[in-house]
Amino acid sequence: MNQHGTTVTQFVMEASVAESIAQSLNLPSVLHLLPHLVHSAQSLARPPISNFHVGAVGLGSDGRVFVGVNLEFPGVPLHQSVHAEQFLLTNLQLHRCPTLLAVAVSAAPCGHCRQFYQELRHSASLQILVTDEDNCVQNHDRIRMLENKAPDFMPLLKFLPNPFGPRDLLDDEAPLLLEQHHNHLDLLDQDDSHTDDYSVNLCNGNDISGKLSNGNCRNHEINESLLREAALEAANNAHAPYSGCPSGVALMDCEGKVYKGSYAESAAYNPSLGPVQSALVAYVARGGGDYERIVAAALVETKPAKVRQDDTARLLLKAISPKCELRVYNCQSAGNVAMCKKVDV
Amino acid sequence: MNQHGTTVTQFVMEASVAESIAQSLNLPSVLHLLPHLVHSAQSLARPPISNFHVGAVGLGSDGRVFVGVNLEFPGVPLHQSVHAEQFLLTNLQLHRCPTLLAVAVSAAPCGHCRQFYQELRHSASLQILVTDEDNCVQNHDRIRMLENKAPDFMPLLKFLPNPFGPRDLLDDEAPLLLEQHHNHLDLLDQDDSHTDDYSVNLCNGNDISGKLSNGNCRNHEINESLLREAALEAANNAHAPYSGCPSGVALMDCEGKVYKGSYAESAAYNPSLGPVQSALVAYVARGGGDYERIVAAALVETKPAKVRQDDTARLLLKAISPKCELRVYNCQSAGNVAMCKKVDV
Repeated sequence: MNQHGTTVTQFVMEASVAESIAQSLNLPSVLHLLPHLVHSAQSLARPPISNFHVGAVGLGSDGRVFVGVNLEFPGVPLHQSVHAEQFLLTNLQLHRCPTLLAVAVSAAPCGHCRQFYQELRHSASLQILVTDEDNCVQNHDRIRMLENKAPDFMPLLKFLPNPFGPRDLLDDEAPLLLEQHHNHLDLLDQDDSHTDDYSVNLCNGNDISGKLSNGNCRNHEINESLLREAALEAANNAHAPYSGCPSGVALMDCEGKVYKGSYAESAAYNPSLGPVQSALVAYVARGGGDYERIVAAALVETKPAKVRQDDTARLLLKAISPKCELRVYNCQSAGNVAMCKKVDV
Repeated sequence: MNQHGTTVTQFVMEASVAESIAQSLNLPSVLHLLPHLVHSAQSLARPPISNFHVGAVGLGSDGRVFVGVNLEFPGVPLHQSVHAEQFLLTNLQLHRCPTLLAVAVSAAPCGHCRQFYQELRHSASLQILVTDEDNCVQNHDRIRMLENKAPDFMPLLKFLPNPFGPRDLLDDEAPLLLEQHHNHLDLLDQDDSHTDDYSVNLCNGNDISGKLSNGNCRNHEINESLLREAALEAANNAHAPYSGCPSGVALMDCEGKVYKGSYAESAAYNPSLGPVQSALVAYVARGGGDYERIVAAALVETKPAKVRQDDTARLLLKAISPKCELRVYNCQSAGNVAMCKKVDV
């Protein structure tokens, strides 16, 4: 173990790997390992506005270890930022991990994040450890670990007593964040004339023509229906019980890889995580490089809707990848069947 | 005292009035009065998405009583919402009250609001009381009041222990929220050809031509420099120590009244309150009616800036008052002198 703990270079670590590392460090459990990974997790953050790198390392209920970092986006208001804790939960969702048991984080979680955590089923008992300002394990905790005691994790309820959250607004059986959602949105059969492929110049990673093409660039064509279906799937998994306005985004990079993101709503409204942010978490967590490598995007959202993401999604994408084209599809829920039509090409 | 307490119909109450009401209710102090005003404060909220009316009634250090309510805006993401606690602090700023001593609020403050409170100088000792779900004073507190004891206010530090906030990022002498800010932004002398009045049809409250006019509608002309100067003043008062990107907004209603709003940043970024939101608090607090009565707006912000409000401000204004015209002016800070030029007409 070096001064700053063990290195983590990816956003998810298999349970067996985590256990091996913990054993190699003579730590009694993976729980003890979490704080040792925080410093290297911080180096994965992308905070070009604040230069304040936050790393959160969480233990999932399936034994895997997940990383969350903060993302900031110059050119738009700060409410478009993604906090490390939001990244972490989205990362669990991405990897279908049922719930988060414990998290070690490099700075005291802000109130915004403590609120976002409320969307978890057993939020009150989520265990949190704040590592110290030197980005190492706190001295106190280091001593405890030398004594082979567990580090001083504390439950979320101690960080946010008397909380406001889902229990104040939803029935007990309503699915919460990380639980399965079926929003019963479905695409109507599209008129063939509206089902386009559109060509993209992927050669330099961010040059998109936005024009129809049946021509000589077949490998570079984006299949519209592929992106739309991915965005629809993300919308169907969205957590939007408060507004009833689910949405989802799919991004495609210049290699043709697709990254999905589901809107994740907070009972307190403002800490909600937008669908583009959620998809950007997938992009970063799966090794995406510069944002300008994102060349196409699709958004599926309900209409009419009291909460609309389209214009705000476009603003963010324009700020981080100016040549990325966003196509928007509106769904109208009709019982278990929803209509979805293209509204913006 | 009726079942739901005393009625409050305005957003600020003079100290002498508050004291008189407290005495008439046989309450030992204005602090005891706060929870009695919460229910009627809730009726002033504007939450068309959630229909969840939040009222916050605060005691300022000058003895005045201030009201905060939540505002929600259909058609944009939920992060554009204003929480009652944010409204309350903006209301104090609007009335130049130095600080907030105590607040009674109808629902447990969410983490987002507990974080926003951190921007106050003595946030840890801010006293908070949550009134119960029936929007009355809690039974426990009612008994305590019958016994002439103070209701159970608790300090913010109990609601958000181990907080992250300004103390983690700023020097001790840096001004915090509600303290005087001088951002040293100033307008360059404008070329006369760029200093326009523009005419607005105020007859129906929301019909704006957006065209220049020297004609027969003199009373309805908006003086561009008036709005610009008001927005500049708001930008100079903005609290933006984390990004260094202050901004301010001025709104004009169809009667020619001007409402200013300063951007208020949070150390945790996402709970920051945008300048349009801040100006809307002024609009609501000063008796503004439907948002569509807002006919013109000016935004002043720095450029280049890592945080830009312009497009997001436009989205919100378009959602709430489609015919309102927003003009944007960029400032470049140059020591104590800033250049400000019109960039968007």
